[in-house]
Amino acid sequence: MSAQIKVAVLGAAGRMGAEAVKAVSEASDMELVASLGRGDDLAQILEAGATHVVDLSVPAATEANVRFAVENGLHAVVGTTGWDDDRRAELDSLLKGHPEVGVLIAPNFALGSVLASAFAATAAKYFESVEIIELHHPNKVDAPSGTAVRTAELVAKSREDAGVPASPDATETQLDGARGSVVDGIHVHSVRLRGLVAHQEVLLGGPGEQLTLRHDSFDRASFMPGVLLGLRTVACRPGLTYGLDGYLELGQ
Amino acid sequence: MSAQIKVAVLGAAGRMGAEAVKAVSEASDMELVASLGRGDDLAQILEAGATHVVDLSVPAATEANVRFAVENGLHAVVGTTGWDDDRRAELDSLLKGHPEVGVLIAPNFALGSVLASAFAATAAKYFESVEIIELHHPNKVDAPSGTAVRTAELVAKSREDAGVPASPDATETQLDGARGSVVDGIHVHSVRLRGLVAHQEVLLGGPGEQLTLRHDSFDRASFMPGVLLGLRTVACRPGLTYGLDGYLELGQ
Amino acid sequence: MSAQIKVAVLGAAGRMGAEAVKAVSEASDMELVASLGRGDDLAQILEAGATHVVDLSVPAATEANVRFAVENGLHAVVGTTGWDDDRRAELDSLLKGHPEVGVLIAPNFALGSVLASAFAATAAKYFESVEIIELHHPNKVDAPSGTAVRTAELVAKSREDAGVPASPDATETQLDGARGSVVDGIHVHSVRLRGLVAHQEVLLGGPGEQLTLRHDSFDRASFMPGVLLGLRTVACRPGLTYGLDGYLELGQ
Amino acid sequence: MSAQIKVAVLGAAGRMGAEAVKAVSEASDMELVASLGRGDDLAQILEAGATHVVDLSVPAATEANVRFAVENGLHAVVGTTGWDDDRRAELDSLLKGHPEVGVLIAPNFALGSVLASAFAATAAKYFESVEIIELHHPNKVDAPSGTAVRTAELVAKSREDAGVPASPDATETQLDGARGSVVDGIHVHSVRLRGLVAHQEVLLGGPGEQLTLRHDSFDRASFMPGVLLGLRTVACRPGLTYGLDGYLELGQ
Repeated sequence: MSAQIKVAVLGAAGRMGAEAVKAVSEASDMELVASLGRGDDLAQILEAGATHVVDLSVPAATEANVRFAVENGLHAVVGTTGWDDDRRAELDSLLKGHPEVGVLIAPNFALGSVLASAFAATAAKYFESVEIIELHHPNKVDAPSGTAVRTAELVAKSREDAGVPASPDATETQLDGARGSVVDGIHVHSVRLRGLVAHQEVLLGGPGEQLTLRHDSFDRASFMPGVLLGLRTVACRPGLTYGLDGYLELGQ
Repeated sequence: MSAQIKVAVLGAAGRMGAEAVKAVSEASDMELVASLGRGDDLAQILEAGATHVVDLSVPAATEANVRFAVENGLHAVVGTTGWDDDRRAELDSLLKGHPEVGVLIAPNFALGSVLASAFAATAAKYFESVEIIELHHPNKVDAPSGTAVRTAELVAKSREDAGVPASPDATETQLDGARGSVVDGIHVHSVRLRGLVAHQEVLLGGPGEQLTLRHDSFDRASFMPGVLLGLRTVACRPGLTYGLDGYLELGQ
Repeated sequence: MSAQIKVAVLGAAGRMGAEAVKAVSEASDMELVASLGRGDDLAQILEAGATHVVDLSVPAATEANVRFAVENGLHAVVGTTGWDDDRRAELDSLLKGHPEVGVLIAPNFALGSVLASAFAATAAKYFESVEIIELHHPNKVDAPSGTAVRTAELVAKSREDAGVPASPDATETQLDGARGSVVDGIHVHSVRLRGLVAHQEVLLGGPGEQLTLRHDSFDRASFMPGVLLGLRTVACRPGLTYGLDGYLELGQ
Repeated sequence: MSAQIKVAVLGAAGRMGAEAVKAVSEASDMELVASLGRGDDLAQILEAGATHVVDLSVPAATEANVRFAVENGLHAVVGTTGWDDDRRAELDSLLKGHPEVGVLIAPNFALGSVLASAFAATAAKYFESVEIIELHHPNKVDAPSGTAVRTAELVAKSREDAGVPASPDATETQLDGARGSVVDGIHVHSVRLRGLVAHQEVLLGGPGEQLTLRHDSFDRASFMPGVLLGLRTVACRPGLTYGLDGYLELGQ
């Protein structure tokens, strides 16, 4: 049997952090050795003997947290937002000096959502038509969702690379907005409904057939299998990986 | 055993008419006694001994066809479009002089579609949120579909009568069209996809729950059970009925 | 503006009771005047000036609770199980002596679920085929769910009353269980999947068309709109009503 | 612009063959040079100058057809059933002597169905639970469908290889058949409904999330994009390929 993975959770007092504390504690191949909140001394991570760090803190703190981990030879799994191109380039440089350390930064840890986007991109070049419907609770302030926009971009790129023309559409007269928004040529529809959480459907159509890829996110517990997968894999992937799909085996 | 219903089909050479000829021929309680196309002499209907007429002709012919049926004491089931308020008012007057004759004019004979619209109107007053998605083949020139617009109108009226406020929606920023078109305050989204025929979903949401009413129309054969139901019922419903829902038992 | 409905919640310490306390407190047309748990003196209800009682206690307590309410002229909305035919007959007798009092006993307060069952029964007589799929979390110990069994019974009765034959099925060879369980002639399939809560689909099929009625229950909050509807209606419905559908307007 | 692909269709009088004749004729990068039915002389293929053969004949004829193609240096795309292990081994030997010739034998040409099965196998190792629902017209004599059985086998193998335990299931009491059939440990449910053609859903569930992969086959036209893809690719894939998935780019 392999040794336990010794994990420190940063941002442990937040909602995602609290879920991660619970998930790591319950995983039979992991040991939770430290839980830190805002203002706690990072030195506690080393004293506790952690080999891995999960960072679910805030944009203002995440860069210092990850730098501390890397400089001390700890692997890091990062779910905090705010890692733009500049920050990632700097981290890349830092990691060159620590070639044995792995860091995963993932904008989305829901395995089903990451898989659905990857499958959509793969399938999109084989169908004449593709559209996206995303459905969320009615308190959401933006439309379409960030995930739907990213999925549309992936789908559009896949079709462009394969030379697939635009989806056919004979619409001549429409009520304003009937055909949805358009992201890189892909129609994206946004539904807002009380009772829902976060859901997405990619609809692909060809002569006589339809393929539908639907993901339902009911609860933020859905992010934890992705976080655990990250922790189990990060030590074998030195350097910086951006996006959980980099850790998934997507071929057959 | 009851006597056979003796049916004449008008517009028998059209696509819907041909389906009706087939459906009436196969119904064990009916007898197809005449099939007329454009220019055929209506007197053939009487010679053939018809008691019922199905009119699936064209807007230019339907009024004369139905007038002929009523004046000769025949019941009529009508699927042809073009029956605006004026025409229906005239027909109503004519029927006053023939109090034993029944006429059904139905803009939609698909039982599932008629039921789905009726259920949507019934349910809409019990949920905070309601939106409609219609999905069709990409050769359709208008959006949203006529059925979706009528469903939205029914849903909106039901909510207004019950004093239900607008569906909640916190959207502040959106890409143009993301939230769909708006019909009487109801959001309606139109998807166009190769491989589809005609499909509609009414999504209703309340705290912690969702009710979805979906209708799929794969083939114009879907209109025939409604036409047969009309033929079996019209003799017991003297006067003019508009809409197949008038013949359905929608309560419990 | 009408007077506030003054509500006492019994079984307030249970999970459903706690939801009811919250829902009544937040309803602008209601006032929560008392919350009682196990062993609390029922006299508090009267002292607090309640006009309505919500009973979400336990089978051993519910009969005494409702009797107390009726004898003191309070209307009652009851979600506790255990009301078999004998208990309901006794309650009926008691209510004869209090002709102004209304009691609603409902085995299911989720509006969407109650509507879906009612719609299924209405639609079932218009389609050749009907089957039911219910989907739940994998900790459920019985299959099919009670709701699916009741829906199948309603559907079967509707078809029998209308003289509709059995759904067509040419299956000659099957793996054991492939075609699901059979309740009163209706096929019922049970799916168990991590991440789900409680979901049901009634599938109705005819030539060239399908009607799907789907209900998703994500959270026990879904029962509260039904409880509030019960409280708003019960005073206008003297005597005993069994099933929330009795309070819904299901026709058009 | 590349040269036209010169195609001979064998089994052209059958329903699938007729669709292929139509699809090849309409493809701008192909030329239909011959259409052969039962008993026609295969020499016509060579006289017509074909470089590619599509075999959609019958199990009794397909082996001789493909042998003729290979021996004459023509590439072959084969949709006829009956290619068991022995036949495929013999063909493999034959192809060794014709190293420039490609043959594709595919039990299923619907791109969406092939993709859905591949995606299901990829995703199955990342989720706690997986079940399959297949839905067909009520004239089908076997249950579950062959496609559902194959999908279940692929899914089961993927989970076994990854060391994923059985889907959780606490069912203690059930009506006979409620939990469906079981193929290699995967639950498979079979629905039969008038109006349907051929449909399949793979449901994958983890904590707080669900991924659904649905394929709808409305019409045998759905096989033609796969046949055309086969024709466009087979010349670049010398030797025998079994299964259209071998021609798809399934990774990212």
